[in-house]
Amino acid sequence: MFPTPVEQLITDLAKLPGVGRRSAQRIAFFMLRQPREEAASLAQSIIDVKDKIRYCRRCFNFTDDDLCVFCRDARRDASVICVVEEPSDIIPIEKGGDYRGIYHVLGGALSPLDGIDPEHLRIKELIERVEAGGIDEVIIATNPNTTGESTAMYVADQLRGRVKVTRLASGLPVGADLEYADEATVSRAILGRREM
Amino acid sequence: MFPTPVEQLITDLAKLPGVGRRSAQRIAFFMLRQPREEAASLAQSIIDVKDKIRYCRRCFNFTDDDLCVFCRDARRDASVICVVEEPSDIIPIEKGGDYRGIYHVLGGALSPLDGIDPEHLRIKELIERVEAGGIDEVIIATNPNTTGESTAMYVADQLRGRVKVTRLASGLPVGADLEYADEATVSRAILGRREM
Repeated sequence: MFPTPVEQLITDLAKLPGVGRRSAQRIAFFMLRQPREEAASLAQSIIDVKDKIRYCRRCFNFTDDDLCVFCRDARRDASVICVVEEPSDIIPIEKGGDYRGIYHVLGGALSPLDGIDPEHLRIKELIERVEAGGIDEVIIATNPNTTGESTAMYVADQLRGRVKVTRLASGLPVGADLEYADEATVSRAILGRREM
Repeated sequence: MFPTPVEQLITDLAKLPGVGRRSAQRIAFFMLRQPREEAASLAQSIIDVKDKIRYCRRCFNFTDDDLCVFCRDARRDASVICVVEEPSDIIPIEKGGDYRGIYHVLGGALSPLDGIDPEHLRIKELIERVEAGGIDEVIIATNPNTTGESTAMYVADQLRGRVKVTRLASGLPVGADLEYADEATVSRAILGRREM
């Protein structure tokens, strides 16, 4: 129905996460109305991100330098490592504002059925960081789901005896309504109850 | 929090319609994980759409040629023109599958408060097409909202006496529930009732 370049753009946009064919159409038509510079700027940003971004040598977060912004920052507490699955998991932790340590990005979660075994994640690199010394605590912040939990368990086992290992608390989200909470969460909240 | 190229991409993506900062982040991280060719293909599609797409000489739909796909198609009935606000409005009409005529894209709707007066739309060009002859009917398919209705009224006035002018029916959408329909729609449906 549309000229080939428009169809091609819609097809490419629809591959993005959270963008269906309808939103892709909407975005494509928006771009057609935009000044060329705006569209060119977006195209350039996409290329730049692929050409300039690599992994932090130490923690495997994204960076445009040798070390990432957290590993470079002398004000961060380098004796505490927070282990996450993906770089994007760092966002909510930083937004919380309570964490002042550094990170380690595993690059995913263990999922043997999908062929993701320990050697596919940066677990060896985490152990090396701990063995190099100077680390007081490793906080495991993988997702509270099946693959995240088994990854947490595996990583904790590997680090046992070498360093203090902790796990993010699981329980009712702040502001949640007990009546509408799912069973697994309530069960976790009860198991993890704290004395007042 | 992120390296500059990532922040820049998130900022650019968040300007797209329907893409908030959160979805922009998700898309940016998705692109970081994608192979470079995939990202480069999207960037190229954006550039292509700006460089290769222009307006159809006759109806002002988007095209990569002199005439758009509908104006080029000899099987379409060139004696009926359907007037729409934007090229994207052609999609639902074509999906309906009942329309075999051609189009005229106004490029918006009249909105004096926003500085959109008749001379900003392709109304003169529509009159010229009608005056050139061979047109039996002009169907006005501007949106059934305030600006779309006043545009329909204005265009109809301009064409009066030169050609048969019709307007898309307004009323209850197919599959709608009368109980939940808004008053304006019900009122339209009553005014536009048909004998059975």
